[in-house]
Amino acid sequence: MRILVTGAAGFIASNLIPRLLRRGDEVAGIDNFFLGKRSYVVKDPNFTFHELDLLDLERVAEVVRDFKPDRIWHLAANSDISFGTKYTDFDLKGGTLVTYNVLESMRRAGIGQIVFSSSGAVYGEPTVMPTPEDYGPILPISLYAASKVACESLITAYAHNYDIQAWIYRFGNIVGPNPTHGVIHDFVLRLREDPSRLVVLGDGSQAKPYVYVEDCLEGMEFGIGHAGDHVNVYNLAVDDQTSVREITDWTIEAMGIDRAKIDVQYGDSPRGWRGDVPQVKLDTRRMIALGFTPKRSSREAVRQTITDVVQQFREGPLS
Amino acid sequence: MRILVTGAAGFIASNLIPRLLRRGDEVAGIDNFFLGKRSYVVKDPNFTFHELDLLDLERVAEVVRDFKPDRIWHLAANSDISFGTKYTDFDLKGGTLVTYNVLESMRRAGIGQIVFSSSGAVYGEPTVMPTPEDYGPILPISLYAASKVACESLITAYAHNYDIQAWIYRFGNIVGPNPTHGVIHDFVLRLREDPSRLVVLGDGSQAKPYVYVEDCLEGMEFGIGHAGDHVNVYNLAVDDQTSVREITDWTIEAMGIDRAKIDVQYGDSPRGWRGDVPQVKLDTRRMIALGFTPKRSSREAVRQTITDVVQQFREGPLS
Repeated sequence: MRILVTGAAGFIASNLIPRLLRRGDEVAGIDNFFLGKRSYVVKDPNFTFHELDLLDLERVAEVVRDFKPDRIWHLAANSDISFGTKYTDFDLKGGTLVTYNVLESMRRAGIGQIVFSSSGAVYGEPTVMPTPEDYGPILPISLYAASKVACESLITAYAHNYDIQAWIYRFGNIVGPNPTHGVIHDFVLRLREDPSRLVVLGDGSQAKPYVYVEDCLEGMEFGIGHAGDHVNVYNLAVDDQTSVREITDWTIEAMGIDRAKIDVQYGDSPRGWRGDVPQVKLDTRRMIALGFTPKRSSREAVRQTITDVVQQFREGPLS
Repeated sequence: MRILVTGAAGFIASNLIPRLLRRGDEVAGIDNFFLGKRSYVVKDPNFTFHELDLLDLERVAEVVRDFKPDRIWHLAANSDISFGTKYTDFDLKGGTLVTYNVLESMRRAGIGQIVFSSSGAVYGEPTVMPTPEDYGPILPISLYAASKVACESLITAYAHNYDIQAWIYRFGNIVGPNPTHGVIHDFVLRLREDPSRLVVLGDGSQAKPYVYVEDCLEGMEFGIGHAGDHVNVYNLAVDDQTSVREITDWTIEAMGIDRAKIDVQYGDSPRGWRGDVPQVKLDTRRMIALGFTPKRSSREAVRQTITDVVQQFREGPLS
């Protein structure tokens, strides 16, 4: 198959692309290195990389038209939620407008399949937890989540009108090697710089389901293979949660820092930042009913990722 | 109160503004006359009109900052759904980006309340009918509805992060005097031009709940007065439906056209156009529980509107 991946230098794509290449796909990728890192770009004869801003519709349309993929994995986004509270048009541009450009390029070139990385954040602070896919009304509390909702809706409208099949996954927190952001990434980098002090956003009680990236990708591919509706919407998560306090402790331990010699400062708020959803539980029964269960629990995903990232950032480049 | 109305030369606003003025509000309005008509702009010493494109953030922010309204009724939108299938960025710009600009102007000026005209179209083709507000997943099938979903989400995210209270109404089809589009408007104009022939989009079986604009405005104001959550989401509709075939017959009759002398041509599809939701039933129990029930049924709203519009377009200007 011919697969185009957006956000190709980002966390999830840089884990996805080697999988696709291993099974013989021909792959092209787009990234502008806003969050993505040059060192994460895959080098392979069957992979073509385009350095390109997805906000440039005409250039995106050209890449899509020329490569003519069978399927697009649209993974590009601002995935740093707190960023969107500083620049209020950030998610609008980097999420909503970019997704419009991808869909419009698909329409023009007659591309038939899109896979989209949405987020459990679309549910805002739901009254039902674990939250199922049919929960409503959808009242997101961050501009990041608002943009994910906007993207989902653009995708379903394009799907209906222009004969595009779509798989929309509402993720828990995805973790693993090649991070570009997120709590583990931040802790490891900050502790590497100053192992005597760690300032934590929020009071550490925030707890979410963490999914290991290989499980995430397995689940997404399982869904593509087994969910055949025109528009397929699935939560992709695990049933347990991990707290920021646990992540703090485990990261300090994994970096070999003496707990007695570090000053860990928690905030006062149960939220990490404005728009942060402090407690997330996603109902995973729909995905399980389809036949897919992640291998790793949240706890295992987090512990594995801390090991991955401490190792990677000890030795590897950061740019 | 000081009230700012967007889409001030449009259908709903031109019915709203006289009501606000009658009860002593000071009102300002913005419109760019894309759908709105110059003849619909209210002339009153307590009303200030700004001819302005809401896509121009800096000018909108200036108007909001200078007028400093207590509340914004954000009614501007492309309300001609079929238009969005011809120009795929039309609703993105005229709905989503415009709403971002209104919210961002509110944030900058510290404005605390927004009233928003959303649509029952957000539900797409729901499996539950009548469709309640908590229906999910939200899978809109038109770019118009996708944009309404995006706007709702932007509003809820801004509400959470910037202390804005919001009333979001998911409308049935609103009808009444001063139309700018819609089936009754179109039929009357086309029959005035050629009373011997009427081409109808779709097979005429499409049926929706029509709400008379005075009932719509009563309901919206009732909600503002009685629903005190930070974000309030209500369907605003009636329980019966009217079919396009009924509207066709009643309009021909009201225009005094001899049924034997007119060639009415229905289409083959149960949809009026791509992205049209052919059967709409909105659950109105939430609004009723709050204490509001529209005075007119769908049938009464349609018949009254046909009378209004035949009269208005016989005598009044169209520009």
